[in-house]
Amino acid sequence: MSPRLEADYILETPVALEKAAATIAGEQSSGTFRPVPGETAELKARSAARIEAITDLGPIPGPALPGAATPHAPHRRARLTLSWPLANTGPSLPNILATVAGNLFELNCVAALRLTALRFPPELVAACPGPAFGTTGTRTLAGVQGRPLIGTIIKPSIGLSPDETAAMVATLCQAGIDFIKDDELQADGAVCPFDARARAVMAVINAHADRTGKKVMYAFNLTGEVDEMRARHDLILSLGGTCIMASANSIGLTGMLALRRHAQLPIHTHRNGWGYLSRHPGLGFDYAAWSALWRLAGADHLHVNGLANKFCEADGSVIASARALATPLSPGRPATAMPVFSSGQTALQVHGTWAALHTPDLIFAAGGGIMAHPDGPAAGVRALQDAWAAAMSGIPLDLAAKDSPALAAAVRAYGPGGA
Amino acid sequence: MSPRLEADYILETPVALEKAAATIAGEQSSGTFRPVPGETAELKARSAARIEAITDLGPIPGPALPGAATPHAPHRRARLTLSWPLANTGPSLPNILATVAGNLFELNCVAALRLTALRFPPELVAACPGPAFGTTGTRTLAGVQGRPLIGTIIKPSIGLSPDETAAMVATLCQAGIDFIKDDELQADGAVCPFDARARAVMAVINAHADRTGKKVMYAFNLTGEVDEMRARHDLILSLGGTCIMASANSIGLTGMLALRRHAQLPIHTHRNGWGYLSRHPGLGFDYAAWSALWRLAGADHLHVNGLANKFCEADGSVIASARALATPLSPGRPATAMPVFSSGQTALQVHGTWAALHTPDLIFAAGGGIMAHPDGPAAGVRALQDAWAAAMSGIPLDLAAKDSPALAAAVRAYGPGGA
Repeated sequence: MSPRLEADYILETPVALEKAAATIAGEQSSGTFRPVPGETAELKARSAARIEAITDLGPIPGPALPGAATPHAPHRRARLTLSWPLANTGPSLPNILATVAGNLFELNCVAALRLTALRFPPELVAACPGPAFGTTGTRTLAGVQGRPLIGTIIKPSIGLSPDETAAMVATLCQAGIDFIKDDELQADGAVCPFDARARAVMAVINAHADRTGKKVMYAFNLTGEVDEMRARHDLILSLGGTCIMASANSIGLTGMLALRRHAQLPIHTHRNGWGYLSRHPGLGFDYAAWSALWRLAGADHLHVNGLANKFCEADGSVIASARALATPLSPGRPATAMPVFSSGQTALQVHGTWAALHTPDLIFAAGGGIMAHPDGPAAGVRALQDAWAAAMSGIPLDLAAKDSPALAAAVRAYGPGGA
Repeated sequence: MSPRLEADYILETPVALEKAAATIAGEQSSGTFRPVPGETAELKARSAARIEAITDLGPIPGPALPGAATPHAPHRRARLTLSWPLANTGPSLPNILATVAGNLFELNCVAALRLTALRFPPELVAACPGPAFGTTGTRTLAGVQGRPLIGTIIKPSIGLSPDETAAMVATLCQAGIDFIKDDELQADGAVCPFDARARAVMAVINAHADRTGKKVMYAFNLTGEVDEMRARHDLILSLGGTCIMASANSIGLTGMLALRRHAQLPIHTHRNGWGYLSRHPGLGFDYAAWSALWRLAGADHLHVNGLANKFCEADGSVIASARALATPLSPGRPATAMPVFSSGQTALQVHGTWAALHTPDLIFAAGGGIMAHPDGPAAGVRALQDAWAAAMSGIPLDLAAKDSPALAAAVRAYGPGGA
């Protein structure tokens, strides 16, 4: 018997739950809209999706999405678990995506459908590349142990020249930063070509490392075509760089796998576009399901937003995402990825982040939280380090601020009533 | 001055339209949540997104999506046009996607946001690979002129062995079919490995071509990793095949570009997953915008669903999609793609499709509409050919059915009161 992969969905439908579930299972495996002669019992046994569980969650007022059959009929919500034989797809992530999240969201028996979780057989996890570095490898390259990597994003997002970018990197290196990333809008534009940026930035980072022994990790955004990404990776490697970055939804799973098969550096994976995949609660993906595919494909770092962020995501969702990345995909091969916190982060969100997760295995990226610190970027970095040390030692923020002028200034600047 | 690309959105927001538009434009170019020192006037001039137009469409009851700031404040809907200098991204489609559809759907000033159209400068269209075959190249390879290609999909979707698939192909070849495609769930599973399927199917197709002079076009689903797709393409080419197929959302733009750069055959592009990108009207993509990126990347055929389909999409949306594919992307390089009609199609939808489009440049794929014809698959194909000939000559369906027993039987079988 082929091992099976499982997917959980939240389904809303105006038709009988069992019937809707059978329609989805049929559409996504051996069935179609009407019985066809070739779908024999033997064929079903080897290839059909199976309904593992349906949990009725009760009636709902009506369809969340337009286009459902009989919109005025009573609707119900249910939790649905389907499974497929791994033999249908093999360990091919692009084909697994088409299987678990293909032509099912448009079925007219579906009034809402969201993929909430994926569970993979160990054979599948073992056959996928997975993250090559994860937290351990990232810590080794960055030279940071026992606390989060304190990071930042180059701003303005786009428009700086290579030399202007490198000048900002010099300031950040002097400030004691651990990690810097390109903005996802900055890849290889005319104003800041990738190669020139890489050379200018790595000259600064290498000089800083020669002086101090600390090599700041810079995630270079090499998003592009396969050959471009490979060449850019090779350039970064040859320059002594320690991280590359790509936009997941831009390159797709196939692009990510091509990058992963080639890469010798951690892959910082940006989720821009996540909003169109997730923002309606009755459509698309929960982060746990979506990110699991990218972990299997090789993502070492994955963005999860941050507490009290400037987007529309609630804190509970952010924490659930970070926890999902730390949940093993199989007992023998956890394939965990390092969560990247960002968006309006300052020293004020540190204690809450620690309290929710109780792990330092994350990248904590602040822009204004560092650059706009009243005493300058070095104090900005110091404030974040001190806040994390305090949180991890169980010392409240206000108490810790008494022993850290940088943290005290951050609390004043970013707290209620601050500038 | 750099040429600019433009994007249209439908925006819903509780904040002033100009302010929301400025936030989106800033987030997707040189700005960020707060002013940063480096964003000089010179930098803005060379890199900032520009608000080209805001058209107030009036008040709306409230936020369509959760998470918007001030959900109880009055909301308005607007049409928004932004533009970006091509210099920001160059002709890089993955980076253009991150620019026009990146981190903007999650902004908390956004209560709904949908990308409705993209307009590209000719320099961009010229620099992208685009479709290598399109309608003209497809017609040449399929040997079909002056009418749609009549096609079908192998069903059951998955579970048939290579020999069982080939046997079905033999039946379809004898029935006079022009085009056959794998299901998107069928790629390289254990029951029907790609190579074995390709060899078995092409043996049938080549034998039929040797006997009759007609080489049926078969779209082999080679969705997978880059190296897999290239090897499978080469196998199909070596076997004399004339078409390959890939799932767009599975392989991503980077995967598609890698395939296009290598391919010497038309790329049949499946849109499975389109539901999660589009089904909520206030989120994601209109087909015109989404498909434009895939046309630039090299899609020769693109799925558009069909009239009176079995999914939730309305007929007007289907026709708008087909028209979008026929709309040139630039005057010198139209990069049009061939629309693929499918999902519950029979002879009954032919006249409506023709009346709406007045072009035979499409693939008309029917499953049950061919295989379940009461007089067999050959009559199923004949009925569709006769329906198209009648529609294109202005002869009504009922009149045409009087001269075509196959069409008459189809009307009886698939019409109201039919089996």
